[in-house]
Amino acid sequence: MPPLRLALAQVDATVGDLEGNADRVVAWSHRAAAQHAQVVAFPEMVLTGYPIEDLALRASFVEASQATLRDVASRLADDGLGDLVVVLGFLDRVVDATDELGVPKGSPQNAVAVVQGGRVHVRQAKHHLWSYGVSDEFRYFVPGDTVNVVGVHGVDIALAVCEDIWRDGPSAAAEAAEAGLLLVVNASPFERAKDDIRFELCARRAREGKAVLAYVNMVGGQDELVFDGDSLIVGPDGEQLARATQFQEELLVVDLDLPAATTSMPEAQTRFAGLRVRRTVLSTDPLPRPDPVPVPRESPERLDELGEIWAAISLGLRDYVRKNGFRSVLMGLSGGIDSSVVAALSCDAIGAEHVYGISNPSAWSSEHSIDDAAELAKRTGLTMTTVPIAPIVAAFEDAVDVDGLAAENLQARVRAVTWMALSNQHGHLVLACGNKSELATGYSTIYGDAVGGFAPIKDVPKTLVWELARWRNAQAERCGGTPPIPEHAIRKPPSAELRPGQLDSDSLPPYAVLDAVLDAYVEQDHGSAELVAAGFDPAMVGRVLTLVDRAEYKRRQYPPGPKVSVRNFGRDRRLPITNAWREQL
Amino acid sequence: MPPLRLALAQVDATVGDLEGNADRVVAWSHRAAAQHAQVVAFPEMVLTGYPIEDLALRASFVEASQATLRDVASRLADDGLGDLVVVLGFLDRVVDATDELGVPKGSPQNAVAVVQGGRVHVRQAKHHLWSYGVSDEFRYFVPGDTVNVVGVHGVDIALAVCEDIWRDGPSAAAEAAEAGLLLVVNASPFERAKDDIRFELCARRAREGKAVLAYVNMVGGQDELVFDGDSLIVGPDGEQLARATQFQEELLVVDLDLPAATTSMPEAQTRFAGLRVRRTVLSTDPLPRPDPVPVPRESPERLDELGEIWAAISLGLRDYVRKNGFRSVLMGLSGGIDSSVVAALSCDAIGAEHVYGISNPSAWSSEHSIDDAAELAKRTGLTMTTVPIAPIVAAFEDAVDVDGLAAENLQARVRAVTWMALSNQHGHLVLACGNKSELATGYSTIYGDAVGGFAPIKDVPKTLVWELARWRNAQAERCGGTPPIPEHAIRKPPSAELRPGQLDSDSLPPYAVLDAVLDAYVEQDHGSAELVAAGFDPAMVGRVLTLVDRAEYKRRQYPPGPKVSVRNFGRDRRLPITNAWREQL
Repeated sequence: MPPLRLALAQVDATVGDLEGNADRVVAWSHRAAAQHAQVVAFPEMVLTGYPIEDLALRASFVEASQATLRDVASRLADDGLGDLVVVLGFLDRVVDATDELGVPKGSPQNAVAVVQGGRVHVRQAKHHLWSYGVSDEFRYFVPGDTVNVVGVHGVDIALAVCEDIWRDGPSAAAEAAEAGLLLVVNASPFERAKDDIRFELCARRAREGKAVLAYVNMVGGQDELVFDGDSLIVGPDGEQLARATQFQEELLVVDLDLPAATTSMPEAQTRFAGLRVRRTVLSTDPLPRPDPVPVPRESPERLDELGEIWAAISLGLRDYVRKNGFRSVLMGLSGGIDSSVVAALSCDAIGAEHVYGISNPSAWSSEHSIDDAAELAKRTGLTMTTVPIAPIVAAFEDAVDVDGLAAENLQARVRAVTWMALSNQHGHLVLACGNKSELATGYSTIYGDAVGGFAPIKDVPKTLVWELARWRNAQAERCGGTPPIPEHAIRKPPSAELRPGQLDSDSLPPYAVLDAVLDAYVEQDHGSAELVAAGFDPAMVGRVLTLVDRAEYKRRQYPPGPKVSVRNFGRDRRLPITNAWREQL
Repeated sequence: MPPLRLALAQVDATVGDLEGNADRVVAWSHRAAAQHAQVVAFPEMVLTGYPIEDLALRASFVEASQATLRDVASRLADDGLGDLVVVLGFLDRVVDATDELGVPKGSPQNAVAVVQGGRVHVRQAKHHLWSYGVSDEFRYFVPGDTVNVVGVHGVDIALAVCEDIWRDGPSAAAEAAEAGLLLVVNASPFERAKDDIRFELCARRAREGKAVLAYVNMVGGQDELVFDGDSLIVGPDGEQLARATQFQEELLVVDLDLPAATTSMPEAQTRFAGLRVRRTVLSTDPLPRPDPVPVPRESPERLDELGEIWAAISLGLRDYVRKNGFRSVLMGLSGGIDSSVVAALSCDAIGAEHVYGISNPSAWSSEHSIDDAAELAKRTGLTMTTVPIAPIVAAFEDAVDVDGLAAENLQARVRAVTWMALSNQHGHLVLACGNKSELATGYSTIYGDAVGGFAPIKDVPKTLVWELARWRNAQAERCGGTPPIPEHAIRKPPSAELRPGQLDSDSLPPYAVLDAVLDAYVEQDHGSAELVAAGFDPAMVGRVLTLVDRAEYKRRQYPPGPKVSVRNFGRDRRLPITNAWREQL
């Protein structure tokens, strides 16, 4: 069993930043080499970031990606890392398109490369494209038809890209080639409980292939997506050998003992399940296990489910702010639970000194709202400013004759204009504080509380907002810190406070019920017949589903926010605005 | 050569309105029968509307589509139309998915059915899925593997669905089966000059197949898409036999003489190019040509290119208003060219009595702006209201300390709040008046002039806005009407009028140059190297491209509007917001 020291570089790449991503690959390769790793693997499309969407169709970008790969190979060799085998994802393309119209011009491919000694030895395109849920790879990429097996220091390493192991074919081809290690590069975004599914999948593929499986994942935020890292290595028995931290960059270095390379492969195995198996030998002689060995590493403690969601949103927000060149955020503080949670998340993500809250009391704001907002500011250390809106609302009401809902919305919009004015004046990113229940039912004012460049909790149902608030306060208490969210903001009945005595429960079912209906309709795509069969009141189901259907136009203009659920509004759930379908009972 | 009377029913279906669409199929089948047609064909997915997006993933909707098809078959027979062969598109699904994870649960299919005598005789799924440009069919549908040939009154009719004829395979299979007629059902959205491409394609496929080709297309607006109808029939020599009106519902009835049906098909032809060919005989005996023959029909005069764009936008706007239950529209009237053109389009689309314009003069509005807006209202007959904004802006400026761009944006947002207040109070749909050049460069105020539920000219570059204005005025003169757009609004230099003496040319290159750069970058996806090679000033190219890249976040929150170009912002051009890629020089 020849030894191999493998490093998985779980890094945060930025979409489009070829130069920065290349620098990161070189820097982390140095770190891997310093720990005497013989192979270092980076995530799927690490050079370009992921997902690049229509950048894949731009010839200049594809060529720049290819040039960056060659440049990285040279730099590594020039830096004295010529022995290190570097495996990394990039955007490639084939010269010969397979289909005249079905494939965009230039035929881009989502590919992985193996680089050593200044040269690119292997390029392999993703075979199974991901075109459901949040992903549209069929729009962009031509699938690959080859699994590469690379001989390194006497062991055989087979390659796969993300979706390749979620479906059959590539892992079986790796097994047929008797590879000792299946190395999978990934950009797999976070959603609730997906880490367990991923682990089980990797364990199953490892057992099936009788090989070690190493899974390196991207980390970081990209618009609606958050990559959670959580890279892992499992043995041929499906047991975990090592696992990286969640939601942070990390170099995971492990010593493996792997089966000796197959020196010659039977002819019959050069094709398997419609895939070519191609073999490239970079080196044949096993190296002695390097010394000093890496410091033995305990697997980090795993976050609980609420901790994962909090970490995902914080990272998504931090990366959106950072990668888009902002330094500070601003949000309206109503004293309610939603803006309180967004404020606490913001302070965790970028530091309270970069967080600005605006309190906009109106005629209908309760005293406790103003107090709760002030208390939140005091607990978290964010900067709060008060801008009363009554005189401005009065000026509008002199100019246009409105009442009822129009008058309520007017207040929400006046608040938003003050936020945008301060954002334009000082460069803050405005955060929208709406939750998923509100977004689903349209219980918000477009161009009012819905304004913002990013919406941290748009994929968090109201009941989960409360859970997160309690979790964050409890966590502060565990660590001896100040719970950031005033208890009263958690306990009081929710209200938009746009008219006297208004409560959310005047217009909506209790949130526990509402969220259960929304989970069935939005996440699971259940029709009303299934909802009624599950015991929900038919009239209530009808009302809620109609609210959801009619609010599509508002959701289209809502800012992006991090996906944490199985199905977010945006990349995941895509419905027409003009849509006469109403579920029948 | 047995005769066949064929009707193409170019109808306007509504997404999700299964009942209404079914009623339309039945009603138009009656019209076809009244003209003694033997076969009537409806567009792709006429029962569900197109595109249905994620409705395809909802089991209740798929089942309702299937039930509606059965119901239509029964109703037609019950109505005494049992002899009529009705060909129509619907949403189907297969029971056995071909792939566990790659295919959404339920395996929906974009299908065409042949109905006669109360029964569904043939169901055929689209073979070539459309997953580029504005379409994502790979996300939803399992491709079909069969071409059906249906024997009707002694002739053979082969079926295809839209994209099937844009790529090779199905039309060749129809030829191999010696079908005399290739009947193609379509939902092919309008874009500039696409009608010529479509005609050439149909002519080529007809010549290749030595068959008559009948192409029936959807008509009507659906969110960003406008289906232009323009159904057509070409002979085996590629000559046009008949062509329907553009942008209107129409029943196109033609008498054809077709080759006699192949009574038995050679075994070798039951598979062709990976496709099964399946034969169903509904009737074998030719009928005598029915009497009376339809009134000989002149092909309608075709619109010129500007007329097509005007018609596309009018139809897209009218259908958005109608299908979403609005009765009136409202827009800010600045006296500038963009809002003047949107107002004129609106009057054409839904009638001036349903169009409301708001003039919001500020301290920096020129006298001519106010006059031009009033003149526009007088010419078109729309209802104009004036709401001055100075007192409201003053109230804001008392509350928040702003200057420069923040103060400019504030004015635009105060205007928008008045529009939204009137919209909420009276139920008008607000129209955003931004053009494509503005949307590209971000030369607009988010939550200001960018507000609205629909944006009629968002895919029209500024130079084309001027052309459309001149075209519409000239057209009025040709018909002896009043040119709707004041000449001064067309001739004056464009200005946002947010500060004294401001002109668009202070911040942007001349529009003729800007639009040429945008065409290359946005429509053609050219990189900056190609732009500079084409002779554009490198510094200007750098500035413009950076503006475009940085405005992505604004475009994401912009309302939908009708696609008229080769590549619109929205369904066609999809770029990440977080995107560090900047074209290099």
